[in-house]
Amino acid sequence: MSKADDGHTLEAVAANGLLHRRAFLRGASVGGAAALSFMVAQNAAAQVSATPPWMVVPGRGMEPYGNRSAFESHVVRSVSAEPGTVGTGASRTPHEHLEGVITPSALHFERHHSGIPNIDPDQHKLLIHGLVERPLFFDLATLSRYPLVSRIQFLECSGNGRANIGSAPEQATAGGLHGLLSCSEWTGVPLSILLDEAGVAPQARWVAAEGGDSAAMVRSVPLDKILDDAIVAIGQNGERLRPGNGYPMRLFLPGWEGNASVKWLRRLKVTLEPVMARDETSKYTDLQPDGRARMFTFPMGVKSLITSPSGEQRMFGPGLYQISGIAWSGAGRIRRVDVSADGGRTWGEAELTEPVLSKSMTRFRIPWRWDGGAVILQSRAVDETGAAQPTRDALLSERGLKFNYHYNAIQSWAVTAAGEVGNVYA
Amino acid sequence: MSKADDGHTLEAVAANGLLHRRAFLRGASVGGAAALSFMVAQNAAAQVSATPPWMVVPGRGMEPYGNRSAFESHVVRSVSAEPGTVGTGASRTPHEHLEGVITPSALHFERHHSGIPNIDPDQHKLLIHGLVERPLFFDLATLSRYPLVSRIQFLECSGNGRANIGSAPEQATAGGLHGLLSCSEWTGVPLSILLDEAGVAPQARWVAAEGGDSAAMVRSVPLDKILDDAIVAIGQNGERLRPGNGYPMRLFLPGWEGNASVKWLRRLKVTLEPVMARDETSKYTDLQPDGRARMFTFPMGVKSLITSPSGEQRMFGPGLYQISGIAWSGAGRIRRVDVSADGGRTWGEAELTEPVLSKSMTRFRIPWRWDGGAVILQSRAVDETGAAQPTRDALLSERGLKFNYHYNAIQSWAVTAAGEVGNVYA
Repeated sequence: MSKADDGHTLEAVAANGLLHRRAFLRGASVGGAAALSFMVAQNAAAQVSATPPWMVVPGRGMEPYGNRSAFESHVVRSVSAEPGTVGTGASRTPHEHLEGVITPSALHFERHHSGIPNIDPDQHKLLIHGLVERPLFFDLATLSRYPLVSRIQFLECSGNGRANIGSAPEQATAGGLHGLLSCSEWTGVPLSILLDEAGVAPQARWVAAEGGDSAAMVRSVPLDKILDDAIVAIGQNGERLRPGNGYPMRLFLPGWEGNASVKWLRRLKVTLEPVMARDETSKYTDLQPDGRARMFTFPMGVKSLITSPSGEQRMFGPGLYQISGIAWSGAGRIRRVDVSADGGRTWGEAELTEPVLSKSMTRFRIPWRWDGGAVILQSRAVDETGAAQPTRDALLSERGLKFNYHYNAIQSWAVTAAGEVGNVYA
Repeated sequence: MSKADDGHTLEAVAANGLLHRRAFLRGASVGGAAALSFMVAQNAAAQVSATPPWMVVPGRGMEPYGNRSAFESHVVRSVSAEPGTVGTGASRTPHEHLEGVITPSALHFERHHSGIPNIDPDQHKLLIHGLVERPLFFDLATLSRYPLVSRIQFLECSGNGRANIGSAPEQATAGGLHGLLSCSEWTGVPLSILLDEAGVAPQARWVAAEGGDSAAMVRSVPLDKILDDAIVAIGQNGERLRPGNGYPMRLFLPGWEGNASVKWLRRLKVTLEPVMARDETSKYTDLQPDGRARMFTFPMGVKSLITSPSGEQRMFGPGLYQISGIAWSGAGRIRRVDVSADGGRTWGEAELTEPVLSKSMTRFRIPWRWDGGAVILQSRAVDETGAAQPTRDALLSERGLKFNYHYNAIQSWAVTAAGEVGNVYA
């Protein structure tokens, strides 16, 4: 027996079935108005009496370091290395399979310029030098004794989502299109403390960060950011950093493009000017319509992504769903996320899962009754500075077609009457 | 060159070197008063010029599902199974190696009564029946479409820490003594929604939860708790539950003793009275000094634990340290944690890492200058209800010596002049 017919008592907030964000929970208090249509209830006693095989014999033993169920082995990062290389490329977080805001470290995105070094932490030191009174070395054991801070924050590659700059929408999953984004609890030492100890010269304005891999990635970072909220991260989701994320230590610049958070950090040189490194001239700049290049475009813009339903998923048939997604901004907290089921004409406000943290992913959710027709789903985030996510048209008219970075436009998912979900430009 | 001699400008807040909780950060703004004494700074240019081997050759490629560095393979759960069994026993989270508040799922504690079943999610159903209008089945695919909530919350075995009831202090690590505690971002469906759909009879007061393992663990839970904040959890730190934590679904009762959050949940029977199951009569009750037994003692008390420095660790020598630890309460948020370096005579207030969440682990930290002498470190948490962690003496004088559960007394770590850290009763 289904109570789906009671659904008409739910409050619509936008076209094509978007419901008030508290509909499900309020339903619980008013006697089931929000009951879903797809539960199963038949011959209950007979079904529960069938003892499954895993209740008949003892289960397996425990592991010192556990793994997931073999039934979940399809949940993986999509890995793509450039031809002729082993480890130059990227792996993307499969957001379409994840919930909440913590990305498991095993599924954190990676972007490498020359593979993943296998660094012995006892052989690795960070040097702070340049315009300082005292050049200093720090190893992992030393840093572990400094004051640590822990924050749940996102990391995003500045190239994330750029497939959508292309003239035709690529058919891929949410993670395939936007999976160069993850969120972890990062633990590390505030660089303000380490630089204070080194004694920064008054004329210093920039810091060049160098990685200890064979690409020796170098990025120039404004000193103000380093002294504001930058850390030398040594922990990720409770344990040490993963090798692909900079073990034993990385720079972490909250809210800024991922490549500047240099992994396997071995050197911070305090300077007057940016060093104009290879990695900030050949890459990570954007050609604009007027022929000039944008450079040092560090903060990531406000963005959101519906992860369920999303590209390459299939609907289960008409009925109630919960649309779920993530929003984030390099400028601070997410203030609001609206969702549209009619391609952006009408919008309903989604519920944000508390706590809404600064420069973190924020989970949003809104109930939706799909009537089985073709619709276009979109989400649009606004951050605490008032910055709003642009449409694709607005972004491209400002930025042209020759840029590669900082694509933060609204993602549109088309749901067909056959229940297929795909990427569209709308 | 060290600036440790400037340390006398730091503000002491309690005996034996406890410093104001903001000392390090304030130090940064006043020119290095808090600089640590153990940094290395010598011949910097020569050292950085030595190119390490991992900068000479390309690194390895990427993995679909990543793993940690081999240099971290010593960070494991301590596993103990009862003699003659494969999987009856427990594994403990190594808190002495972790930072922040998220426990990696691979290191989440487990407590099993008959091992870990290998459940095919397509063959598993949850039945809600008993005093309801409509018995209902839910499988993983169905639950995934219901409204999900995500919350960062702790889970603790009610037997956690009970080694300290013994007459002599057991020498073990922080995790070995108190590692039946972990904290994750849990995602699941509020049971208020599912029970609303089933239609609970007005006379119902309890719910019997049954697990789908070969122990068929059963616990009775008050209906009020089920309707308050209980969920059927399907997600843990972004991905699906781990097998040892109930894959594909478990009951999750925020703040309540872990065994009641029945894993591999297959049945919720709504009842008038508790069913007085084997698991709540032979276990999980406590004999009191007057001969009566405490039963249905669900909420976990307020507790804290210094994780660094902690049991079996060694100090690096006199100098500045940051004491770090975790606090939690089944009643809500942690309000305050104080730390003592003189066995409880004087106390300094630790800094709590934001966000301080309800029924979650909270990280606390406080700077400490160890002068190299023998001291006793303690932490004492107070939650938002005003409940304070008791001393061991106070707890034992109330509860006697014949109880096994809900030991939440202050943990004392002795630091010897030789720099060894051990468990003591003080």
